[in-house]
Amino acid sequence: MKTKPQYDIPLSKVDAIDRHIITILRNNSRASYTDIAKEVGLSRVGVQARINTLIENGTFERFTLIINPEKIGIHVSAFFNIDVEPQHLIRIAELLSEEPCVTSVYQMTGPSKLHMHALFVDNREMETFMKEKLYVLQGIISVDCQILIRKFKDLEWT
Amino acid sequence: MKTKPQYDIPLSKVDAIDRHIITILRNNSRASYTDIAKEVGLSRVGVQARINTLIENGTFERFTLIINPEKIGIHVSAFFNIDVEPQHLIRIAELLSEEPCVTSVYQMTGPSKLHMHALFVDNREMETFMKEKLYVLQGIISVDCQILIRKFKDLEWT
Amino acid sequence: MKTKPQYDIPLSKVDAIDRHIITILRNNSRASYTDIAKEVGLSRVGVQARINTLIENGTFERFTLIINPEKIGIHVSAFFNIDVEPQHLIRIAELLSEEPCVTSVYQMTGPSKLHMHALFVDNREMETFMKEKLYVLQGIISVDCQILIRKFKDLEWT
Amino acid sequence: MKTKPQYDIPLSKVDAIDRHIITILRNNSRASYTDIAKEVGLSRVGVQARINTLIENGTFERFTLIINPEKIGIHVSAFFNIDVEPQHLIRIAELLSEEPCVTSVYQMTGPSKLHMHALFVDNREMETFMKEKLYVLQGIISVDCQILIRKFKDLEWT
Amino acid sequence: MKTKPQYDIPLSKVDAIDRHIITILRNNSRASYTDIAKEVGLSRVGVQARINTLIENGTFERFTLIINPEKIGIHVSAFFNIDVEPQHLIRIAELLSEEPCVTSVYQMTGPSKLHMHALFVDNREMETFMKEKLYVLQGIISVDCQILIRKFKDLEWT
Amino acid sequence: MKTKPQYDIPLSKVDAIDRHIITILRNNSRASYTDIAKEVGLSRVGVQARINTLIENGTFERFTLIINPEKIGIHVSAFFNIDVEPQHLIRIAELLSEEPCVTSVYQMTGPSKLHMHALFVDNREMETFMKEKLYVLQGIISVDCQILIRKFKDLEWT
Amino acid sequence: MKTKPQYDIPLSKVDAIDRHIITILRNNSRASYTDIAKEVGLSRVGVQARINTLIENGTFERFTLIINPEKIGIHVSAFFNIDVEPQHLIRIAELLSEEPCVTSVYQMTGPSKLHMHALFVDNREMETFMKEKLYVLQGIISVDCQILIRKFKDLEWT
Amino acid sequence: MKTKPQYDIPLSKVDAIDRHIITILRNNSRASYTDIAKEVGLSRVGVQARINTLIENGTFERFTLIINPEKIGIHVSAFFNIDVEPQHLIRIAELLSEEPCVTSVYQMTGPSKLHMHALFVDNREMETFMKEKLYVLQGIISVDCQILIRKFKDLEWT
Repeated sequence: MKTKPQYDIPLSKVDAIDRHIITILRNNSRASYTDIAKEVGLSRVGVQARINTLIENGTFERFTLIINPEKIGIHVSAFFNIDVEPQHLIRIAELLSEEPCVTSVYQMTGPSKLHMHALFVDNREMETFMKEKLYVLQGIISVDCQILIRKFKDLEWT
Repeated sequence: MKTKPQYDIPLSKVDAIDRHIITILRNNSRASYTDIAKEVGLSRVGVQARINTLIENGTFERFTLIINPEKIGIHVSAFFNIDVEPQHLIRIAELLSEEPCVTSVYQMTGPSKLHMHALFVDNREMETFMKEKLYVLQGIISVDCQILIRKFKDLEWT
Repeated sequence: MKTKPQYDIPLSKVDAIDRHIITILRNNSRASYTDIAKEVGLSRVGVQARINTLIENGTFERFTLIINPEKIGIHVSAFFNIDVEPQHLIRIAELLSEEPCVTSVYQMTGPSKLHMHALFVDNREMETFMKEKLYVLQGIISVDCQILIRKFKDLEWT
Repeated sequence: MKTKPQYDIPLSKVDAIDRHIITILRNNSRASYTDIAKEVGLSRVGVQARINTLIENGTFERFTLIINPEKIGIHVSAFFNIDVEPQHLIRIAELLSEEPCVTSVYQMTGPSKLHMHALFVDNREMETFMKEKLYVLQGIISVDCQILIRKFKDLEWT
Repeated sequence: MKTKPQYDIPLSKVDAIDRHIITILRNNSRASYTDIAKEVGLSRVGVQARINTLIENGTFERFTLIINPEKIGIHVSAFFNIDVEPQHLIRIAELLSEEPCVTSVYQMTGPSKLHMHALFVDNREMETFMKEKLYVLQGIISVDCQILIRKFKDLEWT
Repeated sequence: MKTKPQYDIPLSKVDAIDRHIITILRNNSRASYTDIAKEVGLSRVGVQARINTLIENGTFERFTLIINPEKIGIHVSAFFNIDVEPQHLIRIAELLSEEPCVTSVYQMTGPSKLHMHALFVDNREMETFMKEKLYVLQGIISVDCQILIRKFKDLEWT
Repeated sequence: MKTKPQYDIPLSKVDAIDRHIITILRNNSRASYTDIAKEVGLSRVGVQARINTLIENGTFERFTLIINPEKIGIHVSAFFNIDVEPQHLIRIAELLSEEPCVTSVYQMTGPSKLHMHALFVDNREMETFMKEKLYVLQGIISVDCQILIRKFKDLEWT
Repeated sequence: MKTKPQYDIPLSKVDAIDRHIITILRNNSRASYTDIAKEVGLSRVGVQARINTLIENGTFERFTLIINPEKIGIHVSAFFNIDVEPQHLIRIAELLSEEPCVTSVYQMTGPSKLHMHALFVDNREMETFMKEKLYVLQGIISVDCQILIRKFKDLEWT
């Protein structure tokens, strides 16, 4: 499994040991307490206590698994900028969030659009989704859809 | 720690048990082989073998940890659409990928722009980054920057 | 009659002889089996068999004739980008496809527009079409119309 | 092989029999003189004479063959709007016309862009083409690329 | 009174003497038949006959007078690009043409907008016109208004 | 010859009789002093004096002739929005003003573009002008060209 | 308290002493008549008379106080370009002007949008304002929101 | 002199009496300590102490005077969106800030543009400024200029 480049955590909020633990877990969240302890120079119990604290105070959101979409048959990674009537923005954002193929829905500064990402088996599945799930929503003004050509960097933070 | 809604994996590529294992690990990648085995109705060794296969054939990219950015002092989540002279697109994409605050850099269909995401402690740090790292790159034509206002859904897939 | 430059067919799907036959027929679809046979070094029957296979498996869509529009009195070749309410996109695409002056209607990635091409005797006929057939359709938001100034290359593939 | 809907030829320039012959040949350009003669009610020689006239006066541009791109391994049909420095528009149009994967290059009213269509085996081949052939051309300002999602109508006229 | 630069009339449609007469009349439409005759080397009657022909065959549309707007108290020369629902384009164009302050209304290729020019005593009069005459029309989507800063050239042809 | 609708002159700057004279001359600038005198109820000398005053104080810019472009072989009436590097805006405006086919060149509020109108015999002449006169100018960034489809109103004021 | 750079007042409308008084008061509107008198070389009564005249003839609009927004807990300074249906432009402008967080609302040449500035404690307050006050207004088509990153100059004139 | 509507100060940072004092001074910054004291129910000395504190801790930036631009001969209030090469953004912002007619220069999220406001005696002065001060700056790509038509609300905060 690949090691990813690390995002630099600002120093002020967590101490150097926590930063070290975070780096280890972001590269391999199945690392055992014993292995982490050895690497950061603490006891096994000390590591476990720190991790529990970071879980309890909400710093750690989730231990998760990143999958290669192509390996499970997903060939189209698409971004949508969706122009909606402002009155319907919240409702449409919530409806789209319920679609299983949709992985993220954001509101940003700039024009009053929704920014959505979704995954599809192929162009046909995407076209069906657009026709049957997206275009039919009341309050949709227009949809700009773009397909991922190449990823240069891709860390799991948003 | 929060349980996230699941992305529906297409059926054709992985069997029902693999799908079950994936769902468990995406919700908690530190789940023990024993616990997974109990839940999916296989032996501990059987689970371990399946997971090793999924790692070896590249289906599993990484076990990782998702952190709440605000808890480590990151208050600005910004998206940049960067218009570059096409001749410099690849080189700029690679340079920006090396910046620690940058979490992703993509090329998509649509206009020949780079789509970048980055995290900052505050607006001031973002302004400094733009002034000292982004605007100085040769071949940058214009930069459109938008700040995240609200996340409606956010799964770790891209 | 003019010989056109050829589009390069990827090697993996058809063998070298089929590629040779395709090149000949794309330049002159009325070429006789005998003439093709001579050029590719097969028997007349062998050529006929290969062509029948390519027709039956759907590789060949149609033998057709390309006409010079100006010679039959068509002076305006126009492209339309039609912005429609997403709910009406499919219905409008199908209605416009029935218009005799319309030669193509596509849906593409990018903004949710229809891309249409049409031929007209002159600007007046185009204006009448826009006024009486296009602007009256329910769900049309706006129409961007551009007129062909010059063709640099033009092969029959879409 | 499929029969296509017909574009209506304006009456003033060609007589009814020529129109009939054109319709037949556009649906099947390999139709024999004998079959055409039977259908339009002329002698075989009369039909041949009319066709020769239409070839000689330039009305008929080419008898050709339309192929199903997917059957020969072409999965991406892409349109490019290419913004170029006006001084380089003609030169770039001519250079791009020489690329084998490019099927058409137009100049239109509206913004001073080139409109190009090309065919690719897959997204990767398209990305390589953009990186190695398109982005490197001197005078290219920006490139907007869109991928065909669905064809509603598609006659061979431009 | 000022002499204006001349637009070059294509040679094929009118002969050299007509062109000479047109040039004289465009610079001073009150020139007497006698003066024109002297200048072009024809008899007074010959000049009058030619001018009558050009009036009768519709070549001459009108002898008119160009006024300096500032001298009669008009300080704002404004252009409007008016985005309308396509169904209402014709009706709105006709309604706006009836407004006395409006001097021209055109439909052009490009986006389905109306292009309008109007003259106003000052910004206040323009604002009132926009508020009371333009914004209230059913079918108006948006209005882009631009004010003339400087004229580099200005001949009376459209 | 056609009578045109009149632009309403603001009352404050010219008296009712001057307004009447202006209306007559804008409809027919060859009207004799005698005919104008009869219509407005002044002596012939009084009318002549008023007209001379309006000429001398610069209110009247020119007596001119409006021609039907189609009658002298002009079939394309085109508007250009020309995006230039701001440093070259004035120089380019002056160069374009010298082209005989160009009838007007303006600078307006809104984006830093030149707005130009020109007349052409046909699309080919326009293409040649764009290629040889417009695109070659140093400092031109892009050119948006639109062709007149229909005039709803057209008075000679700018 | 900071001294600000001065805007240069055109000479024709106010004399040199009034200009001097204005400069002093714009830098410190609490300056006493005595101090102003000393600086401009007039009597205290003379200064008071001039100031009263400038108040009475409407030259002086208001003596006011500029506050540092961050010091009173305001961290987000946002500009909104609000696209409205033209029929509702005036009504929406008046409604938004009543919102306490809104500091300015303008109508300008260019597209028929409202330009609004507002202050917020943080992004959350801004999001609530957009959701509950802005998006719900009838006639709002879209909202483009931008956040101030850096002020280079900032005088109190609009 | 006019009383302006008040911006609501968030409660958390300043107490009710400070808020009252701020309201009074923003409506009339020449109010005497005695008058303020009477209105807020404190001693004259107590008011003076509070004001001094608010000056010293930087809450109060400046006591100033707002002038009616039209009364001193300023008739054009213009906003400029200036597109610059990102490398030159800071330098151009600083150069423009030194121009006396410029009242504000901002950098915002959204496209990498400078947002500038300036005041001019008339359109001619604005044109001269654009030609001689703005267009000549190295690194300027384009300039969009809009003129204020109507102010609905206008408080001195940015």
